[in-house]
Amino acid sequence: MSAARPAGLRAFASDNYAGVHPDVWAAMADADGDHAVSYGEDPTSAALQEKVREVFGERAFAVPVFTGTAANVLALQALTPPWGSVVTAASSHLIHDEGGAPERLGRTPLVPVPTPDGRLTAELVAAHVRRNGFVHASQPAVVEIAQATELGTVYSAAQVRDVADAAHAAGAALYMDGARLSNAAAALDLPLRAFTTDAGVDVVSYGGTKNGGLGAEAVIVLNPEAVVAARMVGPADVPGGDAADARDRARAALGYLRKQDMQLASKHRYLAAQLLALLTDDLGIALAAQANRMGRVLADAVAGLDGVELARVPEANAVFARLDPDVAAEVRLRHPFYDWDAAAHEVRWMTSWDTTDADVESFVDALAAALRARRPR
Amino acid sequence: MSAARPAGLRAFASDNYAGVHPDVWAAMADADGDHAVSYGEDPTSAALQEKVREVFGERAFAVPVFTGTAANVLALQALTPPWGSVVTAASSHLIHDEGGAPERLGRTPLVPVPTPDGRLTAELVAAHVRRNGFVHASQPAVVEIAQATELGTVYSAAQVRDVADAAHAAGAALYMDGARLSNAAAALDLPLRAFTTDAGVDVVSYGGTKNGGLGAEAVIVLNPEAVVAARMVGPADVPGGDAADARDRARAALGYLRKQDMQLASKHRYLAAQLLALLTDDLGIALAAQANRMGRVLADAVAGLDGVELARVPEANAVFARLDPDVAAEVRLRHPFYDWDAAAHEVRWMTSWDTTDADVESFVDALAAALRARRPR
Amino acid sequence: MSAARPAGLRAFASDNYAGVHPDVWAAMADADGDHAVSYGEDPTSAALQEKVREVFGERAFAVPVFTGTAANVLALQALTPPWGSVVTAASSHLIHDEGGAPERLGRTPLVPVPTPDGRLTAELVAAHVRRNGFVHASQPAVVEIAQATELGTVYSAAQVRDVADAAHAAGAALYMDGARLSNAAAALDLPLRAFTTDAGVDVVSYGGTKNGGLGAEAVIVLNPEAVVAARMVGPADVPGGDAADARDRARAALGYLRKQDMQLASKHRYLAAQLLALLTDDLGIALAAQANRMGRVLADAVAGLDGVELARVPEANAVFARLDPDVAAEVRLRHPFYDWDAAAHEVRWMTSWDTTDADVESFVDALAAALRARRPR
Amino acid sequence: MSAARPAGLRAFASDNYAGVHPDVWAAMADADGDHAVSYGEDPTSAALQEKVREVFGERAFAVPVFTGTAANVLALQALTPPWGSVVTAASSHLIHDEGGAPERLGRTPLVPVPTPDGRLTAELVAAHVRRNGFVHASQPAVVEIAQATELGTVYSAAQVRDVADAAHAAGAALYMDGARLSNAAAALDLPLRAFTTDAGVDVVSYGGTKNGGLGAEAVIVLNPEAVVAARMVGPADVPGGDAADARDRARAALGYLRKQDMQLASKHRYLAAQLLALLTDDLGIALAAQANRMGRVLADAVAGLDGVELARVPEANAVFARLDPDVAAEVRLRHPFYDWDAAAHEVRWMTSWDTTDADVESFVDALAAALRARRPR
Repeated sequence: MSAARPAGLRAFASDNYAGVHPDVWAAMADADGDHAVSYGEDPTSAALQEKVREVFGERAFAVPVFTGTAANVLALQALTPPWGSVVTAASSHLIHDEGGAPERLGRTPLVPVPTPDGRLTAELVAAHVRRNGFVHASQPAVVEIAQATELGTVYSAAQVRDVADAAHAAGAALYMDGARLSNAAAALDLPLRAFTTDAGVDVVSYGGTKNGGLGAEAVIVLNPEAVVAARMVGPADVPGGDAADARDRARAALGYLRKQDMQLASKHRYLAAQLLALLTDDLGIALAAQANRMGRVLADAVAGLDGVELARVPEANAVFARLDPDVAAEVRLRHPFYDWDAAAHEVRWMTSWDTTDADVESFVDALAAALRARRPR
Repeated sequence: MSAARPAGLRAFASDNYAGVHPDVWAAMADADGDHAVSYGEDPTSAALQEKVREVFGERAFAVPVFTGTAANVLALQALTPPWGSVVTAASSHLIHDEGGAPERLGRTPLVPVPTPDGRLTAELVAAHVRRNGFVHASQPAVVEIAQATELGTVYSAAQVRDVADAAHAAGAALYMDGARLSNAAAALDLPLRAFTTDAGVDVVSYGGTKNGGLGAEAVIVLNPEAVVAARMVGPADVPGGDAADARDRARAALGYLRKQDMQLASKHRYLAAQLLALLTDDLGIALAAQANRMGRVLADAVAGLDGVELARVPEANAVFARLDPDVAAEVRLRHPFYDWDAAAHEVRWMTSWDTTDADVESFVDALAAALRARRPR
Repeated sequence: MSAARPAGLRAFASDNYAGVHPDVWAAMADADGDHAVSYGEDPTSAALQEKVREVFGERAFAVPVFTGTAANVLALQALTPPWGSVVTAASSHLIHDEGGAPERLGRTPLVPVPTPDGRLTAELVAAHVRRNGFVHASQPAVVEIAQATELGTVYSAAQVRDVADAAHAAGAALYMDGARLSNAAAALDLPLRAFTTDAGVDVVSYGGTKNGGLGAEAVIVLNPEAVVAARMVGPADVPGGDAADARDRARAALGYLRKQDMQLASKHRYLAAQLLALLTDDLGIALAAQANRMGRVLADAVAGLDGVELARVPEANAVFARLDPDVAAEVRLRHPFYDWDAAAHEVRWMTSWDTTDADVESFVDALAAALRARRPR
Repeated sequence: MSAARPAGLRAFASDNYAGVHPDVWAAMADADGDHAVSYGEDPTSAALQEKVREVFGERAFAVPVFTGTAANVLALQALTPPWGSVVTAASSHLIHDEGGAPERLGRTPLVPVPTPDGRLTAELVAAHVRRNGFVHASQPAVVEIAQATELGTVYSAAQVRDVADAAHAAGAALYMDGARLSNAAAALDLPLRAFTTDAGVDVVSYGGTKNGGLGAEAVIVLNPEAVVAARMVGPADVPGGDAADARDRARAALGYLRKQDMQLASKHRYLAAQLLALLTDDLGIALAAQANRMGRVLADAVAGLDGVELARVPEANAVFARLDPDVAAEVRLRHPFYDWDAAAHEVRWMTSWDTTDADVESFVDALAAALRARRPR
């Protein structure tokens, strides 16, 4: 981040190309020092739980994990009986980018539902979530939505509530993949709770890595009753034994499942410190707001360029556009980014918490130059 | 079985070398004819459930499957939370002869406990079933015993009760692998219920295949409350919905799990017919009694032979003996059987429902002749 | 099947409502009698393998299992690396009727491809089977087609070849779900080999149960090189050791996987006998031809009825039609059948090997009467 | 670590209670800054691979993961066919402390072998690794040893070689759990390669977390031919396609498996930086040497105390001792540690890279005082 590092890579490829925010480094350093009990029994982890209750509500608790894939798999394991399936947008990360982990490790069939813009609706849920007790078919047990979606769109709080109501009416739980939850909060200008706990979400994941962290995500349980795995927790499986309530049992169930999912950090304090830093004083939302703002600036700047067509208005930090592949190749030399749909000449430009106005300017300049060079005279 | 089939194989290798008893054929033929609803909704299957309640108690229900491996895996899936393990005798079939299915498909860690004679005791259970709520360790959730055991021994009803009490005291369920349940009943001269339902067994399997069947086993749930998987059954997953009780939910859970375990017979009536025939008028126990009797006759006959040492007094239909490998090889030419522990020169001779006194005589004659031929003069 | 059984159920619900053909009973009785080596080492099982080579080609071998679900799961396990996925028609049995077994036990992500009539095409395969080496995505490793399809359509041999070529060009294997393979052979008037081995299919399943059997299916490997699981077979895992060839290793791999899938019959001779009977003198194809013929007769008879609309021309033994739900309910009282798409008022009528002209007449009479009764006068 | 932090916890509970070494922090900060390609394609990750080749040999490559559980599961997945099992010491971490992950996610049966001191021997391997091609039994495919062992003992290079030869002779691979590999290197005063690559180990894990890291472990493949999963890698699955060699294919296979195991870090550079720092100039070994030295100092100091009995001479950084539980409770108030075997009054004291002479003195003083207070006067 030093101004003296002139040759540094400035990409629009992914928000996980970015480094770690100084406040996150500081929080980790602050958690360092003498010995701390491992596996989450340390003071920093306790502070995180308190913060999570403050942000998401009194019944909420966090289960920190290492990756977004893990958060998704763990959440779905917690919410799904062996005969359950998961209904999700056909464009979802869950289907396309988890390497088969939901099926292979989570063992959950995924039911893809085509959507116009990455968002499920109450109508789509009602049409696809038919839990019929038929032994030959998987029973839709979870509706999964991503906030922001894989296509860069954002559900309004009312849209989340509608989907939640439809899911619950059909006997399914609502899980929200929040790998970019802070970007959604920034886009909606709402506190995290307004479109999660208060909108009927049962379990949400919280993405810290792309949001200025080093590597920290969390499954956050908002409604412990929805955790079907917790019903198998017996008195011997949980501190508190017979006195344990639904929240205690849900914590115990996710604790066991997280360990099996190979997501239990021994030096847990450093995971907790990252998440705590991002949740404190809305740092994560502020960082996401900067990423979103850069996305808008970028979209506005290219909207006027001949030869670039925006696929849709960006709502978070992903800009989808169509342009000539040769032009794209030229721009990539200076600022790398990925194809989204190579056949359709559609690319994705992502901004991140550390994208600067200068980065966008440089990118737009390169793009404009490449377009000019390609234009037949 | 025709007397006119002179060259027929008469083996002491396994009770699944035997054919199908005529009454079982008749029962299947009787279930044949016009159309029947598939997947267990037919009259023969209903009659089986009624018979199971009569034999095992009012809360019992059967889930027919194709193999003993499947019965074991399905029962353990039903009784085990994701963080649970299964405590079993170190000599058990579960550990040595299921090809890894309990771990690979059932996904259950097995905890082997050394025993003197294949039988677990209350003391062994108390020493090994420590469910401590420790997230790093699997929690012993099931105690598995086989009746008769893999070593041919049989638990008395009191011994079963002791193990059941110890398991329950430790927060674990008791599962009995009954691939040779009828042999145990015959050996104990007790009705099936006396050493299962009435002795605290939560789930038992019932083996029909080795007992004169063509291929039919069943998981029989005796205590629906023990089925932890049933706690994940929601109103939409079960006929009866909110009115469903623990038994209904357990049936629903095992129904889904059986389908996933690839054990749901489409023409279910033929599976049901076999099991019904064996349970009717104690046919299965009578057939097992014959097998057991032949085992005793064989053991008595060889006891007097120089060069043969019985490993233990047979309690069911398996006779374990030590003898010279060359002698064994000679006898095998006429009557095949398997090594049990080749290094220790220990072999296993199994009798079956169709073993005759003439078979045993022929076997003993061949053995005596081989021993004489080997003896130095 | 006795004419003296007047009140017998005659349904059009499923071909697995039918009983067992007399020749299949006879074959099982013939395999009965004295002892036979278990787990597939008996003479009947050897005869089956010989017959399979005769019918499907010299490299073919059969792996008998109990259910169609099991055949599908086992075949896909054999053909799929851990990072592989399976491309299949969106309407397939695999997706809708296996209770999640492919994902939960087979651990294979399924990729649904919409089709007009249940058939994949070379174009659809080319568009969806993109194996790109991208670590974040499952790699399409198998193309699955059903013959006949779930919608009652049948691939021509040329269509199979086209799909096979497209699959192979994309680095994927071709698996054919042959739960109704004989119906396809009858419909095409071709030997089984013509549209399987000779058309580029790598592995096919063969359905005996619906085809007059009691309960017997088989995975039939046609191209052992396609079995990726076999590449993990070491010299110690296979009879023959270092001398084992690709076919030996494929047999060994499927042997282990079948055991783990809980599909290894101890009294294997009865499974083999059923399959052998059906493959001998094309009995299975003859039985399927009768079922198909009844489907055509039924379709022709109802085509003229006012108030019934055929969804498509039946090519095998499934007839799909749209009619008033109240009319359907009335007919069901005498001849049960299932809804296919309740919302669309579409029903499915299936004929089976034992459906008679009298059955169809009775059905059409009942339908005509119900239609008349409903018609406003 | 500031001297001004007087109330800091100084425990002897686990080496993962310790913080992060300054050089590891510095390495992570050095990797920070501008954008870096994610998922392991960054310069720091490339430097790690180069270092791994330098340390472990030219064919070696590292697959960084988050936890020791994950390293174990991933390594075993890579080395085990579906029908394989893993032979391990009965006291191993794999059996007791992985929460069932090897069975539930890795799906591998574990075969526990009792040992006197946590170390397997060639004789034990020869007695238990019998790969017999028998379809009913799992085939031992991997021998797993831990270096240092769970009981704090260390294999000599010759002992590793003996076990490797025995494993290979039996057709099994050798996997070494190196969660404390640096402690072993320090104890043996040998370079890492001497008792891994050069001693016949096929795959080793390298533990960075307990060794001064924040959270970083790695599977390090030494012998790509041993990776059976790699045999399923096709040309389309690997960069290089048909030109890919065994090492390329092994890297590809582990890449897919790591993603599915939810262990693929997006900001991979920080994982790589930790591991690189520890491998550079033998920092990890130096830190481990300090931990080991503190263990010896502690053992020597308590050896003279009446009322404390060492269970065995410590070879690495774990000291096992028996003492009165009330005394233990008293000492724990100042310096926490865990029971090892509560019934036997055996406790475990672990030292770490940051344990100081002052820490040990304080601990021994507290112990001596507690012993004096308990002694009857």
